[in-house]
Amino acid sequence: MNLPTPLTGVIPPVCTPLTPDREVDVRSLLRLVDHLVAGGVHGLFVLGSTSEAAFLTDRQRALVVETVAGHVGGQLPLVAGAIDMTTPRVLDHVTAVTEAGADAVVVTAPFYARTHPAEIARHYRLVAAASPVPVLAYDIPPAVHTKLPADLVLELAAEGVLAGLKDSSGDLAGFRQVITGLHAHGVSGFSVLTGSEAVVDAALALGADGAVPGLANVDPHGYVRLDRLCRAGDWSRARAEQERLCALFGLVGVGAPTRMGGSSSALGAFKAALHLRGIIDCPATAEPQVPLSPEEVEKVGKFLAAAGLL
Amino acid sequence: MNLPTPLTGVIPPVCTPLTPDREVDVRSLLRLVDHLVAGGVHGLFVLGSTSEAAFLTDRQRALVVETVAGHVGGQLPLVAGAIDMTTPRVLDHVTAVTEAGADAVVVTAPFYARTHPAEIARHYRLVAAASPVPVLAYDIPPAVHTKLPADLVLELAAEGVLAGLKDSSGDLAGFRQVITGLHAHGVSGFSVLTGSEAVVDAALALGADGAVPGLANVDPHGYVRLDRLCRAGDWSRARAEQERLCALFGLVGVGAPTRMGGSSSALGAFKAALHLRGIIDCPATAEPQVPLSPEEVEKVGKFLAAAGLL
Amino acid sequence: MNLPTPLTGVIPPVCTPLTPDREVDVRSLLRLVDHLVAGGVHGLFVLGSTSEAAFLTDRQRALVVETVAGHVGGQLPLVAGAIDMTTPRVLDHVTAVTEAGADAVVVTAPFYARTHPAEIARHYRLVAAASPVPVLAYDIPPAVHTKLPADLVLELAAEGVLAGLKDSSGDLAGFRQVITGLHAHGVSGFSVLTGSEAVVDAALALGADGAVPGLANVDPHGYVRLDRLCRAGDWSRARAEQERLCALFGLVGVGAPTRMGGSSSALGAFKAALHLRGIIDCPATAEPQVPLSPEEVEKVGKFLAAAGLL
Amino acid sequence: MNLPTPLTGVIPPVCTPLTPDREVDVRSLLRLVDHLVAGGVHGLFVLGSTSEAAFLTDRQRALVVETVAGHVGGQLPLVAGAIDMTTPRVLDHVTAVTEAGADAVVVTAPFYARTHPAEIARHYRLVAAASPVPVLAYDIPPAVHTKLPADLVLELAAEGVLAGLKDSSGDLAGFRQVITGLHAHGVSGFSVLTGSEAVVDAALALGADGAVPGLANVDPHGYVRLDRLCRAGDWSRARAEQERLCALFGLVGVGAPTRMGGSSSALGAFKAALHLRGIIDCPATAEPQVPLSPEEVEKVGKFLAAAGLL
Repeated sequence: MNLPTPLTGVIPPVCTPLTPDREVDVRSLLRLVDHLVAGGVHGLFVLGSTSEAAFLTDRQRALVVETVAGHVGGQLPLVAGAIDMTTPRVLDHVTAVTEAGADAVVVTAPFYARTHPAEIARHYRLVAAASPVPVLAYDIPPAVHTKLPADLVLELAAEGVLAGLKDSSGDLAGFRQVITGLHAHGVSGFSVLTGSEAVVDAALALGADGAVPGLANVDPHGYVRLDRLCRAGDWSRARAEQERLCALFGLVGVGAPTRMGGSSSALGAFKAALHLRGIIDCPATAEPQVPLSPEEVEKVGKFLAAAGLL
Repeated sequence: MNLPTPLTGVIPPVCTPLTPDREVDVRSLLRLVDHLVAGGVHGLFVLGSTSEAAFLTDRQRALVVETVAGHVGGQLPLVAGAIDMTTPRVLDHVTAVTEAGADAVVVTAPFYARTHPAEIARHYRLVAAASPVPVLAYDIPPAVHTKLPADLVLELAAEGVLAGLKDSSGDLAGFRQVITGLHAHGVSGFSVLTGSEAVVDAALALGADGAVPGLANVDPHGYVRLDRLCRAGDWSRARAEQERLCALFGLVGVGAPTRMGGSSSALGAFKAALHLRGIIDCPATAEPQVPLSPEEVEKVGKFLAAAGLL
Repeated sequence: MNLPTPLTGVIPPVCTPLTPDREVDVRSLLRLVDHLVAGGVHGLFVLGSTSEAAFLTDRQRALVVETVAGHVGGQLPLVAGAIDMTTPRVLDHVTAVTEAGADAVVVTAPFYARTHPAEIARHYRLVAAASPVPVLAYDIPPAVHTKLPADLVLELAAEGVLAGLKDSSGDLAGFRQVITGLHAHGVSGFSVLTGSEAVVDAALALGADGAVPGLANVDPHGYVRLDRLCRAGDWSRARAEQERLCALFGLVGVGAPTRMGGSSSALGAFKAALHLRGIIDCPATAEPQVPLSPEEVEKVGKFLAAAGLL
Repeated sequence: MNLPTPLTGVIPPVCTPLTPDREVDVRSLLRLVDHLVAGGVHGLFVLGSTSEAAFLTDRQRALVVETVAGHVGGQLPLVAGAIDMTTPRVLDHVTAVTEAGADAVVVTAPFYARTHPAEIARHYRLVAAASPVPVLAYDIPPAVHTKLPADLVLELAAEGVLAGLKDSSGDLAGFRQVITGLHAHGVSGFSVLTGSEAVVDAALALGADGAVPGLANVDPHGYVRLDRLCRAGDWSRARAEQERLCALFGLVGVGAPTRMGGSSSALGAFKAALHLRGIIDCPATAEPQVPLSPEEVEKVGKFLAAAGLL
């Protein structure tokens, strides 16, 4: 299907359930997709950071896209990450995910290599020129150690190189600069999406088109409700719903920072929650992430209970 | 062949010559390898950062290792990078490069994902358990945004998980901590290699086994001479040779920082130098790196001339 | 006067006008204060980052506080920065600014020294114990290279060590965590203030008590209007006013990044605007900041004109 | 006295002993200075990072310089830090320390404010123009979050703005670039000093004039011996002495990173060692540093014993 212009609503970055031996658990993945669709989400984003794309082999990545595209393809927009270090490697992923059924690709700035705004621009131009589907920029400084400058995004939007932005930078002021810049330059149809779970109401209030919250795996209904309240301009009920989700979002911190990194804790907690809710069979995260302890999983359960999800 | 324990001498990270349309230029690669072997180098490191591994597709990576292994396999140690974000993806590269003939693999800490020392250790343990050849740690903070702690390297060395360290951190004090720690713990056969072009004499003086200098692509004879002088304890002539190489190393800065990043400038200059010296057919670097301007290439020529290489 | 609990509304970080030979220009400072008070602001923050506190000598700092306290003391809350590297030096500033008439002090995490959350907590506890006035934490990672963790702020708020937070981190999700945490812990009277010029509407919408926008020097009426609209729940007109201010805020980028740093550009632009508006006599910034060029000042004028301020 | 050109040998950054209530312990300071002079050091550096300059009030700073200048002034070169955020504040310190008897000042790049190479150059030019004594640049990125570029140092050296460099960056390649650049430009009399405790032999081997090792507080005799061996070209005995000092240097890591920051651990360990060796009366460090536990102090004792110092 063609990507809506703009893409709006809640587009969760879909977790990738794994078996105990770290293979893609296709049946759990299908159940998770069904759970999200039943929750009313407006699109799906596979192979993002929350999907553990950085941990999946090429074979596993292909299986994920094929599985989800085969299940919901054509029903709702399917966006796929093409996460790799530089242009030639990203282009291989673009080919793979579009052949597998993705309606658009999400691409970060180059990483590992020391980069420069001129090279980031060149990167997106080359990827867009070769991609059969629209390209969304993925701004994720904690992963790639570069912030996409707002004026660069605006330039590439105006040129038609980029079809949208998925902003996981946490910098709402920069995000707003993109939104107001698009209006000032008369660019329309560009999708501005926030990846910040805790300020979706704020992002929508200032003009975002939609949200890509990892936490929507755990509570899609909550984010869909939040999106609906925001669109209706019911800001005080939106704030209450967002605050409920913020409290739930505390689960990403259950993992002890003396034992593990932030990815292990957050992705481990999302998967533990999906497992506790009965949606996926096994909460395993990919290697070399450190698993949550039983006590940490118990804390996840308490967050779910407090949010009315267990 | 088995990896020497320790690996010693000059082991250049081999540049990957490309054709104007950015395919691996096999004939130039073979000429470059011949140039290095004629220069007296003691091993070859393919698919490192200087080899633009971050920019090569999996197909191109395989072609590089096969080409070099087919040409010099068994004559001198062939070490290959297995550069990717996390354990499962690295393991695919380990399989690929060892099937193509690598005698050892070089592996960085995880990147893109937010990581933790416990996860770095887990990563190396898993990679080493699955690798058919020895594993060397690649400490390159500018690329992966983590510094390998000396005590972690020492722990993994003592366990036999790691067979060596390629240190491109620029932190000579931390490097020395590994060397003195190995002695203190009675660990032998572990290869401690510096990747810092400008302080190879200092690194060898304090006990390094060898060097992996990108600049050795341009002047292998110089680094081999430097290595020989250091081993002979002729420190004043070693310093003079090192200072000649330091002056030459200035070529990495020819690219204007207003136009390009550090990779574009340094890798562009190495390839321009190899092209000017008649070793490779085309100085192109991989996308999205910005090419050097003619004036910048001219400056590279002046560095070569000043070093007596043109 | 006692600090309101909480402090609410618009509390601009007051620029420090300088003479051409870089002494405090007392008459311009008084005019600036009158301009802010006439604009309807609800408090004044002197010796913050926007006030060039980092550039002022102790003598100049004292003169600033005395001047402003002598002019408006008792009429509206006067908050003063006590910006220095560590506890003993901060305490000297606390003494100086409170003797000069400050109603509260604003204190960052330690900087220069490598610090730790336990030391940040100790720092605030010691400062609060010795301070005759309430202490607000100043979260400004670009300056001190540490982010104040939300749970640390909450802990110190609950203990009564901190009376408020001035958040210039740009991290709205973390800011919200403080706000919701205060409610969850039943802490009242704690002042949560945003320093982010471009998202004041969003910050107030999610529960902030007030704003400390540097740009309010240039357009206090605009921010006071914005504050009033937000308090009235008139979010669509608030957004329009905020977007007008966002456009004006573009003036901080007039300075060429090839010639100067971010402070020189932003503070130079604020002062150029105040000079163009006839409020201060001289736009000089403190050394070693690089002055704006005439062309860059002209651009500042265009921003003012576009915002209806010239 | 006039600063030697260049300044050579071992110039320890003198710890500042404190009383239990955190005042300067003048008698202990005098004993420490006597201990260093008896150890054969070639100069003294007061009010550096190791001296806890960042933690001392202006009154305490003055007392330190007066005390040391009154005790050894004229006997050996006395260099003093003028550590503050920007030019005007640094200039006040320059006045204070030179009036108190310093023969030269040591000045970092601006910090707290976001800076730029053009502003760093401007800063040093202004400080040098106003200083009655020579100015040495202090390159300490972990404190000021900027690395002094080698070409900037060389430019200011050639102009006569800077009289020397104290390099605590840990980047030996950049350090060497300064040394070879001075030779290439024919600049003489410029003092190139390393602050890296663990690679003093390497720094002297590649042409440094001297060393400013914090650890020389604890073992001045060792560093003086090391310096002498290096100057004699007795590199293998130099390396053995350096390795003994490296082992001793391990004491900086005794403080648990879960409880404190790097300054607390390193400065706490230096002072604990001086206390255990009977040189200072009290091992207290300035606030808000976390004190070492008795167990951690015991570990310091073991390092001393292993190095033959107890």
